[in-house]
Amino acid sequence: MRSPCSIARSLEVLGEKWTFLVIREALAGVTRFADFRAALGIAPDILTARLGTLVGAGVLEKVPYQEPGSRQRHEYHLTDAGRELRVVLGALQQWGDAHCPYEAGPTVARRAADGRSLGVAFVDDRGRAVSPADVRFERTAAYPA
Amino acid sequence: MRSPCSIARSLEVLGEKWTFLVIREALAGVTRFADFRAALGIAPDILTARLGTLVGAGVLEKVPYQEPGSRQRHEYHLTDAGRELRVVLGALQQWGDAHCPYEAGPTVARRAADGRSLGVAFVDDRGRAVSPADVRFERTAAYPA
Repeated sequence: MRSPCSIARSLEVLGEKWTFLVIREALAGVTRFADFRAALGIAPDILTARLGTLVGAGVLEKVPYQEPGSRQRHEYHLTDAGRELRVVLGALQQWGDAHCPYEAGPTVARRAADGRSLGVAFVDDRGRAVSPADVRFERTAAYPA
Repeated sequence: MRSPCSIARSLEVLGEKWTFLVIREALAGVTRFADFRAALGIAPDILTARLGTLVGAGVLEKVPYQEPGSRQRHEYHLTDAGRELRVVLGALQQWGDAHCPYEAGPTVARRAADGRSLGVAFVDDRGRAVSPADVRFERTAAYPA
């Protein structure tokens, strides 16, 4: 059965999925190891490894917390860099809904605060969408010889 | 040493990189096995597996060709679904340039046909960029109980 999450479906095609799914949960407000584990059904050693990579890369930061009667633990909070991955996940979600569709339709919608439906697109410096056919990738002077 | 490609750098953090890099080369015009291999320095068995996955997913299609004196071979052409991954790669590139920078600066620029510099952003149905802080992901009726 296909996953209801378009991001998960895109990544079944496109690559290693756990990293993006950890970020998906973090964007949804998850911060604790047990909650990541419960949400994703991921093996603890893989989750530990992925969280470590994301902390090392500056996407998540570890914040200590302590509940009464328990030892100190850490939560994982998104950094600004981590929050900027929203547009990457939005693009994966949009592609998955278009090209790896879920039988019941999209399970999550992207909306502005006022309810407008949103997509992900190339935009110019005035914030106006540009047709994909007009987009060029040009090598700069920094491109290696 | 860090890769000069921001997509490669993002994926060193974010997951399995070969799939996206195969698509990057396909978007740059590569169609033949030997050329993917030369561009990426990827092991033939991994390249065969990734191309097979992408053909199976409808991202690439196999097109036969034959050069004089050689046996028939296949080229790999992007489908419409494959070309729509430009925005996903653009988002990964943008994030990598911002958060995993290359010492000499960005090596590839996104430009419109008239030379305007482009980003990747959430846009509304009128093609206007929306501030990331205003973007919400809302579960639809199709979301599993």
